Amino acid sequence: MDKIGIGVIGAGRIGRVHTETIAQRIAEAEVVAVVDIDISAARELADKYMITQVSDNYIDVVANRDVDAVLICSPTETHAEYVIAAAKAGKHIFCEKPVALDLNDIKRALEAVEESGVKFMVGFNRRFDPNFKKIKEMVTGGKIGEPHILKITSRDPAPPPPEYVAASGGMFLDMTIHDFDMARYIVGSEVDEISVFGGVRVDERIGQAGDVDTAVITLKFENGAFGVIDNSRQAVYGYDQRVEIFGSNGMVKVDNNAPDNHDYYSRDGVHSSLPLNFFMDRYVEAYASEMKEFCRAIAEDRPVPVGGRDGLLSIAIGLAAKKSLAKKRPVKVSEVLDMNAIKRKTAPYA
Amino acid sequence: MDKIGIGVIGAGRIGRVHTETIAQRIAEAEVVAVVDIDISAARELADKYMITQVSDNYIDVVANRDVDAVLICSPTETHAEYVIAAAKAGKHIFCEKPVALDLNDIKRALEAVEESGVKFMVGFNRRFDPNFKKIKEMVTGGKIGEPHILKITSRDPAPPPPEYVAASGGMFLDMTIHDFDMARYIVGSEVDEISVFGGVRVDERIGQAGDVDTAVITLKFENGAFGVIDNSRQAVYGYDQRVEIFGSNGMVKVDNNAPDNHDYYSRDGVHSSLPLNFFMDRYVEAYASEMKEFCRAIAEDRPVPVGGRDGLLSIAIGLAAKKSLAKKRPVKVSEVLDMNAIKRKTAPYA
Amino acid sequence: MDKIGIGVIGAGRIGRVHTETIAQRIAEAEVVAVVDIDISAARELADKYMITQVSDNYIDVVANRDVDAVLICSPTETHAEYVIAAAKAGKHIFCEKPVALDLNDIKRALEAVEESGVKFMVGFNRRFDPNFKKIKEMVTGGKIGEPHILKITSRDPAPPPPEYVAASGGMFLDMTIHDFDMARYIVGSEVDEISVFGGVRVDERIGQAGDVDTAVITLKFENGAFGVIDNSRQAVYGYDQRVEIFGSNGMVKVDNNAPDNHDYYSRDGVHSSLPLNFFMDRYVEAYASEMKEFCRAIAEDRPVPVGGRDGLLSIAIGLAAKKSLAKKRPVKVSEVLDMNAIKRKTAPYA
Amino acid sequence: MDKIGIGVIGAGRIGRVHTETIAQRIAEAEVVAVVDIDISAARELADKYMITQVSDNYIDVVANRDVDAVLICSPTETHAEYVIAAAKAGKHIFCEKPVALDLNDIKRALEAVEESGVKFMVGFNRRFDPNFKKIKEMVTGGKIGEPHILKITSRDPAPPPPEYVAASGGMFLDMTIHDFDMARYIVGSEVDEISVFGGVRVDERIGQAGDVDTAVITLKFENGAFGVIDNSRQAVYGYDQRVEIFGSNGMVKVDNNAPDNHDYYSRDGVHSSLPLNFFMDRYVEAYASEMKEFCRAIAEDRPVPVGGRDGLLSIAIGLAAKKSLAKKRPVKVSEVLDMNAIKRKTAPYA
Repeated sequence: MDKIGIGVIGAGRIGRVHTETIAQRIAEAEVVAVVDIDISAARELADKYMITQVSDNYIDVVANRDVDAVLICSPTETHAEYVIAAAKAGKHIFCEKPVALDLNDIKRALEAVEESGVKFMVGFNRRFDPNFKKIKEMVTGGKIGEPHILKITSRDPAPPPPEYVAASGGMFLDMTIHDFDMARYIVGSEVDEISVFGGVRVDERIGQAGDVDTAVITLKFENGAFGVIDNSRQAVYGYDQRVEIFGSNGMVKVDNNAPDNHDYYSRDGVHSSLPLNFFMDRYVEAYASEMKEFCRAIAEDRPVPVGGRDGLLSIAIGLAAKKSLAKKRPVKVSEVLDMNAIKRKTAPYA
Repeated sequence: MDKIGIGVIGAGRIGRVHTETIAQRIAEAEVVAVVDIDISAARELADKYMITQVSDNYIDVVANRDVDAVLICSPTETHAEYVIAAAKAGKHIFCEKPVALDLNDIKRALEAVEESGVKFMVGFNRRFDPNFKKIKEMVTGGKIGEPHILKITSRDPAPPPPEYVAASGGMFLDMTIHDFDMARYIVGSEVDEISVFGGVRVDERIGQAGDVDTAVITLKFENGAFGVIDNSRQAVYGYDQRVEIFGSNGMVKVDNNAPDNHDYYSRDGVHSSLPLNFFMDRYVEAYASEMKEFCRAIAEDRPVPVGGRDGLLSIAIGLAAKKSLAKKRPVKVSEVLDMNAIKRKTAPYA
Repeated sequence: MDKIGIGVIGAGRIGRVHTETIAQRIAEAEVVAVVDIDISAARELADKYMITQVSDNYIDVVANRDVDAVLICSPTETHAEYVIAAAKAGKHIFCEKPVALDLNDIKRALEAVEESGVKFMVGFNRRFDPNFKKIKEMVTGGKIGEPHILKITSRDPAPPPPEYVAASGGMFLDMTIHDFDMARYIVGSEVDEISVFGGVRVDERIGQAGDVDTAVITLKFENGAFGVIDNSRQAVYGYDQRVEIFGSNGMVKVDNNAPDNHDYYSRDGVHSSLPLNFFMDRYVEAYASEMKEFCRAIAEDRPVPVGGRDGLLSIAIGLAAKKSLAKKRPVKVSEVLDMNAIKRKTAPYA
Repeated sequence: MDKIGIGVIGAGRIGRVHTETIAQRIAEAEVVAVVDIDISAARELADKYMITQVSDNYIDVVANRDVDAVLICSPTETHAEYVIAAAKAGKHIFCEKPVALDLNDIKRALEAVEESGVKFMVGFNRRFDPNFKKIKEMVTGGKIGEPHILKITSRDPAPPPPEYVAASGGMFLDMTIHDFDMARYIVGSEVDEISVFGGVRVDERIGQAGDVDTAVITLKFENGAFGVIDNSRQAVYGYDQRVEIFGSNGMVKVDNNAPDNHDYYSRDGVHSSLPLNFFMDRYVEAYASEMKEFCRAIAEDRPVPVGGRDGLLSIAIGLAAKKSLAKKRPVKVSEVLDMNAIKRKTAPYA
């Protein structure tokens, strides 16, 4: 088989990460086109990795016959449109999270994918982190028995600029969405109900922008398990990403990673290194592994590991979280999305 | 000063623990009387520690002029009555948790204490655990800045007999009450609102008895902090008692204790010892420290470290938890107790 | 059986520790006599624990018919004489380490014990520490297979006064002796050869007193295992006591104990508590467990867990260490003691 | 500046690792030639990374005008010859460890380097491991004060084939050489004297080949510090690589790395992952970092971080270790190498 031709839409940070991964680590794929509305960004990337086609219009990538698959790494508000165009052109699609902030936009995108039969994968990179893969593997392997309680700690090192907050859909759709996906993934069951306590503890301007920056979120899963996610936009000690799951036969937890594992003993106590502070450092291997899985799914015509249903449900849970916060009561996910209808669907929802 | 004369009411497990502590570790106090409706249990304890007065009627202890203070270690339903009698007799009082399952019973008991002016301490032993004292000390010392998120994991090694469940007031009043007290203690602020997801995951008979055995409980504190408690009646790996608090300037957490700290590396992995499995093992030092503090408060006429207000509010939060579970919505603690009235009160409420 | 009557010789720190243990924790024994050349120290202890006989002459204890066993807690130079006197009087003997600094003195003492048939136990308290007991149990249980490499780290928090150094026999006989005993105990084989690199790195006055304060000591055991002990008289971060053993099927190691297990995450790093700084804190449970074992061996007429041979060989290894340092070459233990003669002996050498 | 042209001599495992690093991670360098006596191995590597020149004769690389620097990744017995040839041709040199097994061969090679003035770096990859870099940085930064005791644990997951043993120079020159270099690097002082206890505990055939497979090695440094290295050819739990250094103001230690940091709590205990088992996994980042440093030293005309003196002294210590084992006594490094003569030298010895 020839190399898989990849078109990258969006030459920003995450677009560059995926391009580098393909160039350095994925022999069976090749980036053949790059698009950015900032043509200089596209050109810079193209120069670095000897990419043939450079454009400032995504249509060019979609129309490129050498492109087998696109990576949608542009701003969220463009995702649905690009997914639809790529699907219609018969290109496989890797779309960064979130697919869209509006459930109908996501559904329209998924319908286009469904009609075209292309592969569609959503960029929930954390699923590919060695720690989280291990915890998933242990749950799936029956090590903890029936899951009873899931605990996710997810705290960012620093808050986003307040002006970013509104555009992002707020903390639950922008940041917690990763945790919602992780919750579904680890527990292996859908979230039935959600209850939120949240507030502004970090930056008043986030509150003025209509969002919260600190929250404790509880989940009830369809299989009877319970979950809790605690979020903060600012952990002064760095990026804090931990998961624990407790069940009828045991418990497994994973901790943060640090740049080294030294312990220093002085008169003042025992000191060690902080967790890796930046998501690009913490998840560098996860991003690479994610892209390999996408390319392998195409090469071997296998299902992608994270599909449209994952993109849709994570947003639905996020919208339920927003509603719980606003209404000050638990909210069923079925209040925002017809779960039964979704479950009857097949790929790309499955 | 003469030794403080102690009368022990209830010669069961916890009565024996306190008696031993006084005999072995507290030079300034002496157990001079022991009462149990099972006179043989009282006699056995008296023989072992050379205790002068033995009786099967608590009135005898209350009337004993050599008794300066009583330890109420009898079943919960007797606590309020014994507190009132002891207070009227001018005896200082150490009362095991919970003071009572009914708020009015507690209030009546506290009123009697208030009138008599005796000292009144409630047996929240975990406050005296070295780990939890350390975390409290760090919060009080400003190490984490403003508290934002509290996390308490509290899981028992095995469920109680189903027949115990009803009498105990249920998981929230029997087991989680320790966590409610810990939450107030560590955060240093009152719980304003509580929201509960709970169910039966461990033992169906607990459900048949009208209780839950697994829960995730979120808290909103008056100072704006949030909290989460996760409970299970059965952790197969032992007694799991951990606390973490996160704030504007950092995070501190404490873990379980194990009987030793060995790490064993074999072909199969790295293995280490489970946490101490039994609360008497985990909290042996805490029980001793608690009793020392009570005796010292009497000897030096200082305030007790855990007072009537702590006994009252922990039950109020527990009742709010039960209501949240029943009503399937967040519940303000003020729905079950007039918090403002309580705050206006002084000792023993303060 | 009546309570075992205990006579304590030496009312200093360690004598007080053992007396307290017996009073508080050992129901089957009772301290009935205490002797100290400083009569006021003896009297103080007697008052506190209601001890009948008080004297400033050890002969009184040895002659006391109520005394079944003596605890020799006096300075090292008196040990041999007291052992001999007690043995002749038919008293069981617990002797603090070292039995003597001279091998002939130890042998004379052991011969007296042998003739009288009393029990003789040496106070190597560390064998009773939960961590070291665990590592021993795992080695004995075959968890590591054949032992290949033993590693002992043993560092004191602060050096002794220089004037103490000469009287103590130097670091190897005073401090490392514990590690020599631990090495024999954990590996379960005798030390065949020893090689020492040592020097003065902490306090020049220790060098002026003819001793070293820092050393790395290697051991060759009769079973083919190797070992290393590293010593320092001053670890600024506290009392450092760790053991690791590596074998054909795995490795097990034990670490220090800290007063609590908190982890504090701030902008500056992760911080936790130092190891317990004082040997009385670190080994409080070990001292109690040791005394219980001695009393139980008497009560049940069983062999003591640490005998005369252990007292003799630890000193022999220490003398070989001194010789290795002086001669700048490896030294066989058989150069200082006829190992074969010792092995042919039975109790108290066994 | 143009890209640095690299010629790779030896297309075996380590040659491939360095080639991949340069291709993927070092923009300023390019592999332009590859040589292997097995031409098919050279060709395979050339195909994969589009390398222009392929040969089975190292002379071709040395004569290639596009080659600025060579990487000597061939068997040890060829190193000295290739170094000399490359130096004469004015090529910078990166040479895998050991430079040679014979001190005179190394000296001849270094003299050629000295005459030509090219850069010469030795492949002690562990210096570039994040953990060991951290410990070095802390020692250099004065965190531990004066170094007193260094401890290195270095155990391989499985022994080499017995037939490899003789050719390799034995354990001290093949395996411990890394630890000797690490010891010099971390302590920042030269080894003055060495004493070895060693034997055959793992595989009798290693003994039959004249070597040991288990050893405890003590070091005396010129600055007065002491050190210990413990080695085994077979740790059943994986590749064990730890360092600890203790000094007048504190202690710092680094542990192994595992593929994930999960902790699993079951009825049987707490379980976690074994250390990374293979040196290519453990040191993947170290190899990349090492090669970057070499290229940067050329690009910026700076001294290399590991030079000829490091290559020479690590072998000298290894030879002293062999002598200590054979003679059963401590051996001064000056017995095998004139240290003063070496110290008077400048680059490439400095």
